[in-house]
Amino acid sequence: SLTYAPSFGIPALRGKWQESIFEKNSSLSGKKISLPVVTCGITHGISLFADIWVDPDDVVILPDMMWGNYNLIFSVRKGAKISQYSIFTENGTFNLKAFEDKIKEEAGKHKKLVVMLNFPHNPSGYTVTENEGNGIVEILENQAKAGINILAVTDDSYFGLFYEKKSIKESLFARLCGKNSRLLAVKLDGCTKENFVWGLRVGFITYGCQTEGDPSPVYEALEKKTAGCVRGNISNASHLSQSIVLKSMLSEEYSGEKEEKFIILKQRAERVRNVLSDSKYKDAWEVHPFNSGYFMCIRLKTVNAESLRVHLLEKYGVGLISIDEKNLRVAFSCVEESDIKELFDIILQGVEDLSV
Amino acid sequence: SLTYAPSFGIPALRGKWQESIFEKNSSLSGKKISLPVVTCGITHGISLFADIWVDPDDVVILPDMMWGNYNLIFSVRKGAKISQYSIFTENGTFNLKAFEDKIKEEAGKHKKLVVMLNFPHNPSGYTVTENEGNGIVEILENQAKAGINILAVTDDSYFGLFYEKKSIKESLFARLCGKNSRLLAVKLDGCTKENFVWGLRVGFITYGCQTEGDPSPVYEALEKKTAGCVRGNISNASHLSQSIVLKSMLSEEYSGEKEEKFIILKQRAERVRNVLSDSKYKDAWEVHPFNSGYFMCIRLKTVNAESLRVHLLEKYGVGLISIDEKNLRVAFSCVEESDIKELFDIILQGVEDLSV
Repeated sequence: SLTYAPSFGIPALRGKWQESIFEKNSSLSGKKISLPVVTCGITHGISLFADIWVDPDDVVILPDMMWGNYNLIFSVRKGAKISQYSIFTENGTFNLKAFEDKIKEEAGKHKKLVVMLNFPHNPSGYTVTENEGNGIVEILENQAKAGINILAVTDDSYFGLFYEKKSIKESLFARLCGKNSRLLAVKLDGCTKENFVWGLRVGFITYGCQTEGDPSPVYEALEKKTAGCVRGNISNASHLSQSIVLKSMLSEEYSGEKEEKFIILKQRAERVRNVLSDSKYKDAWEVHPFNSGYFMCIRLKTVNAESLRVHLLEKYGVGLISIDEKNLRVAFSCVEESDIKELFDIILQGVEDLSV
Repeated sequence: SLTYAPSFGIPALRGKWQESIFEKNSSLSGKKISLPVVTCGITHGISLFADIWVDPDDVVILPDMMWGNYNLIFSVRKGAKISQYSIFTENGTFNLKAFEDKIKEEAGKHKKLVVMLNFPHNPSGYTVTENEGNGIVEILENQAKAGINILAVTDDSYFGLFYEKKSIKESLFARLCGKNSRLLAVKLDGCTKENFVWGLRVGFITYGCQTEGDPSPVYEALEKKTAGCVRGNISNASHLSQSIVLKSMLSEEYSGEKEEKFIILKQRAERVRNVLSDSKYKDAWEVHPFNSGYFMCIRLKTVNAESLRVHLLEKYGVGLISIDEKNLRVAFSCVEESDIKELFDIILQGVEDLSV
């Protein structure tokens, strides 16, 4: 493990991860996808994708609530334009209409659209339902049919952390694959959160496309191009990290240990929902829909999110993230179940402090 | 070590590596340099440097023999122009005149020059002498004085592997630091070869500049900018790898183990020189000067380097690298001392095979 890994990543891990993608995404059954190329964490997958596929002045379609690093990668590094739609309806569902309107609007201006799809979503913790997911796929497929080149990129960082029945349980990548020759599906995922190894930096980039005849030569070309970009950026990802991940995935305890961690996170999510059902919070904030992942967001009714964030940090030592003026992100993933009520009570106290 | 490391790298490792830079480079005594920012290997240091400092159409000055990945990073990724000088004189010394002419030529066309300095050199295994090194520094300092903005970047990947008395024993970074306010020295180095941990991917980028008054705010700004670029590219480098490197550097056995490996490599280099003193090779090739690092190069007199490379690989299973039509790189670093004579005899046999 102290020798160099190939720029592509170590072959056994690439094969094992591909196998796991098929296992986790039933709609891929019978479809062909590329072998994953190993990246130095999922951020690296996103920036590699951007290096290979995004040119200055390209448009990248994202929801209005999003991970801040998308801005650093797509706008600051690549000079692309981020175009945002409103992610939720008033009723707390995915805003398919806003998504479609945005796609149509940008398709009127660009022959090529980059569409980032991130479920479970950072920061809201929302994953679309079956219907919403299929709606997204259909909207993109229709644009591809109409001649627009679509790069549909799934950022599956929090994949697998689905806590409720009604959300989709696979990556939209699985449903986007093979839909249209103008639609390239790109899956960015990794071990960071799926395997609970944040500091190892092992991610993957995998392609799914529709070709006439055997797609293997296309996938081979895409893999080579991607590994070439890895080569010119970091040479290769940590061999030690890749070896550890592979070994753990081959271990008999792997699925049991993953399940154990999943249950802890699920219980925290359920506790959040339970705590927030208390009507005492209702004048202070609304709860955005959440059903998955690490986070949930509250929409503050009376105080500024950034002011509250600073106040909570300074007065109570509680660290949250303000998304914009109104929205505050809570990472319940790193709060013990028994501390969750206290956390929200402190946030409420903070709101009251600022309202005096 | 499974949690995220900061984008800057873990503080204790940054401090320890900075300390080691001072220990290894006596000319830094009394000078101030930035804290190193941790990169995912030295390639990542080079591409980070390029992302932050190199714009399309900038010129990057490099010798005619160089590591191929420079081309991928500077030309392919960044759209900069690589401008090359002839590295050696007929007498087998560093071609200071060619270097100076190239610098002057490009300074006539650009207000900003990026100058990559790579000693021990890949592929030749050459490190400049004291006089040659000071000559390089003086040439760059003079251009800075004349109003040209100089980014002098030392790629110190093979640092420390100095096998002969007459080469310089420190990085040119140490002598470039603090020379002129228009001269920014950038040190790219890492554990890959210095600490013999190729697969861990731990490199560093460190700045040295001349400022009026306290340089700390400048260094702080440079470190933040650099860590911001890490953030938007890979988020952070492997925490596990960083922890292992730090722990090993704090170990009592560290310097002894490094010395042990150094001696093995030095003996291989000496064996190469000894073997090549045999006059039977003299019609087949000339030996380029080498005194350090992993590699040495031969200049073929009668056959094409790429043809010979392919022939050696196919017929004898010997893997070398052709640098251009004439030059072949031999990585003696990975050949047992006892196999070195056989290696060169096979190369000679290959030349004879092709000459029939």
